[in-house]
Parts: sequence; structure tokens; C-alpha cells
Amino acid sequence: MLTLAIDTATKVCSVALCRDQEILAEYNISMGMTHSEGLLPQLEQLLQRTKITKEEIELIAVSMGPGSFTGLRIGLATAEAMAYTWKCPLHGVNTLRALAYNLPLEDLVFSPVLDAQKGNYYQALYQWQDGQLVELAPLQVVSKAELVERIKALGQKALILGECRKLAALELPAAIRLAPQALVMPKASSVALLAQQEFNPEADKKIFGLEPYYVRKSEAEELWEKRQKQQ
Amino acid sequence: MLTLAIDTATKVCSVALCRDQEILAEYNISMGMTHSEGLLPQLEQLLQRTKITKEEIELIAVSMGPGSFTGLRIGLATAEAMAYTWKCPLHGVNTLRALAYNLPLEDLVFSPVLDAQKGNYYQALYQWQDGQLVELAPLQVVSKAELVERIKALGQKALILGECRKLAALELPAAIRLAPQALVMPKASSVALLAQQEFNPEADKKIFGLEPYYVRKSEAEELWEKRQKQQ
Repeated sequence: MLTLAIDTATKVCSVALCRDQEILAEYNISMGMTHSEGLLPQLEQLLQRTKITKEEIELIAVSMGPGSFTGLRIGLATAEAMAYTWKCPLHGVNTLRALAYNLPLEDLVFSPVLDAQKGNYYQALYQWQDGQLVELAPLQVVSKAELVERIKALGQKALILGECRKLAALELPAAIRLAPQALVMPKASSVALLAQQEFNPEADKKIFGLEPYYVRKSEAEELWEKRQKQQ
Repeated sequence: MLTLAIDTATKVCSVALCRDQEILAEYNISMGMTHSEGLLPQLEQLLQRTKITKEEIELIAVSMGPGSFTGLRIGLATAEAMAYTWKCPLHGVNTLRALAYNLPLEDLVFSPVLDAQKGNYYQALYQWQDGQLVELAPLQVVSKAELVERIKALGQKALILGECRKLAALELPAAIRLAPQALVMPKASSVALLAQQEFNPEADKKIFGLEPYYVRKSEAEELWEKRQKQQ
């Protein structure tokens, strides 16, 4: 099915068109630009060059987090608006799980991570087994040290993907590597491929009110609750 | 250095901007569109969205083949014209070697292949060792059977990249796999990363008259020579 996908969970703005497992087109920009300004023009460019019309699109896929609070809201709001106006089904995917689709290779443990701020990371552990992505350890908010320990506990060669640049300063065991530049960040094509696997026409009827996977509360919410308690 | 890269060696039209080893932006379309119509608008879109100006670009990188005769000519002519008008250095890279930059992972043999028509393939064999790309076997035009035998002879796990879709029908040994969709085709970001490694300001002064790596003669040339002999 022809799928239009969006990932704005990090500083990367990524949009893609996939037909079944084939990647037709992908536009990625990773320059720290504002998604509120950049996402729609980038989507317009993609549709303009590929000459794919809205009538042809059968599924809209969006990265649901964890990730940047504002980035996720912009991606989801845009995806919801398109799904509503184009009368097209919408499916949201887990950003960490989608990251493992950047590199569907067996024999390796994948540890996608995203910055949860305050020195913490969102982390889950996956492995490709017989063409299926298997979750070895669930999504958790962890410190840098815990992140490395969770990988070491599996005793296998592992690759860290996602927002892992700050981890380059750590002394990692030889079996644990950071993924190469080209594969490290979220890609909308990975979101599309995962969404096509997960999509269920019956369960995915809801367009509005999907909630991003925020995991922990936003800075603003924490501050608000703290102030309420003080009163 | 800020590098603008182009790859039109296959049906994929790929353009990218990289600063040193960082991929800033990449636009890929793989829908069998004509590069003569698509390449310039796609470049214009990339520069427009990233707001990178021609004055900032320090190197133009282009994929030189082997590959599609017409595709290579369009890519090279466009790169030469930009290098000339923008007074910017130009560096061409080997398309097979650039493909190995899609996945800089050790412990695997990489066999990039490109369709040489008539059931033949361009093939070279590489491996990443201590962060360097090492050529294990040079570029050759081979049949499907020879292609597989050359990989088997190395006795290691291997991944085939490039125009390898038709090889999916072959019964490959368990140690030899086709690369996943997201990594299989040429990427301009890989061209940029390789060009930055190879670039030499002294040797790369020539802008016009670079010759694509055609390896074998084009259909038209073969036909012309055949006719000359018959006369």
C-alpha cells in the first residue's frame, strides 16, 4: 500500500513515500530547523517531485515518540490533519521501534535511544530474528550507565542508534558500537515500513486524539505540578 | 568541508549536503524518473529548504560509475557546470566504492553490484577494517554465477548492495544476503563522505573532461564498431 510517512521526533525532519516494502522517495533534513516551519514545505516538495497525488495515498504513518515534545505534536497534528482532509487511514508507530528498521540485519542487538533530557535516555532493545523484529527489553527511561549495563547484560554485539552522539564520550565495551552516521537518526521510510506491518484497518479507524508516547511529563507539566503543590 | 553531492548512476536520483562526516540533508527519489528532468529541480529543492547558498559550498562530489551511461553523463555534466559557474572544486568517486559507504560496519564483506546489462554485473568486494574501506577484489564485469563464486571464495559473511534485485531469484548460500531496502541503492551522502576522504586540492583542479567509469562500451559504440568492421 502507498504510504506517506513523517518523523519529527528529533531534530531530523524526515518525510517519505513507500509502496509496500519499496522506498519510492525520502527527504531528510537534519539541521536543527523548526519543524513548524519546515515540515509542510518539505512534504509539498516531496509530493511535487514524485507527482504522487493525495488520492493515491492509502496510509499516513507518523512517528509517535518518545522524542521531542514539540516535534511530536507538530508531526502528529500534521498527520491528523492530512488523514482527516484526505479521508485516509492513519497509523502511529513507536519511534524507537522504527529506528530498528533503519538496519534490518540479524546477528546484532539494536539499542535505539532518544534523549530524555537531564542526562537520561529512552531506551529499548531489539533484535531481528527470522525477518521479525523481537523486543529483548522494553522501553525505559535510564541513565547513561544503566543504558550501557542493559546492553552488556545481553552479552551480544550491539549497535546504538538514535540520539547517541553524547554517548561517544563514554568508554564503551568493544562489543558495543554507535551506528554509523547514515543510519543513526530516525527515517520516515522506517516509519512507513513499520506502519505497514502494524496497520489494522479495524483498529486504526480513529484519526483524532492519538496521544504521543511521552513516557515522562514535559518540563512545563512538572513545573506546573510543583507550583500547585506549593500553593 | 561543506559538500554538495550527486548520484545518478542508477534509477535513483540522490542529492545531499554533508559537512565533514555529518549528513545535513539528503533527497532521494527512486521511481524511474528521467534524471534530465528531475535532477536540477531536486537540487533546487534541497538548496531552497536548507537555505545553503552556493558561496558556502566547498566541494562538489559526483558518482562517476560504473552505472547507467546516460545517468552518469547527466550527473557529471550537471556537477561540472555547477563547479565551473560557482568556481568550486569537483571530485568524482567510484559508484561501487561509494555504495560500501552506505553501511560502514566491520565483520562483513560488502559486494556492491551494478547491472552491466546482458546478464552481467559490475562487481567489486570491500571490507571495513579499522575504520578504513579495504578493497578485497577489484572491479570486474562478471556473470551472476561468477559474482556469487567471487564472494564465496572469501569464505566470510557477505552483503550484496546495489542493483541486486534480480539476484533475489538465485539460491544464495546462507552466508550471503542481499542488503535491506533502505541500504541497497546509491546515496549521495555516501558519495559526499567518500569524496571528502579522497579529495586532494592539488590533484582535483580539473573541472572539465572528467570521464565516467564506463568499464565496457555502450550499446551504441559496440554497434558502431560492428558496422565499421562490416563495411
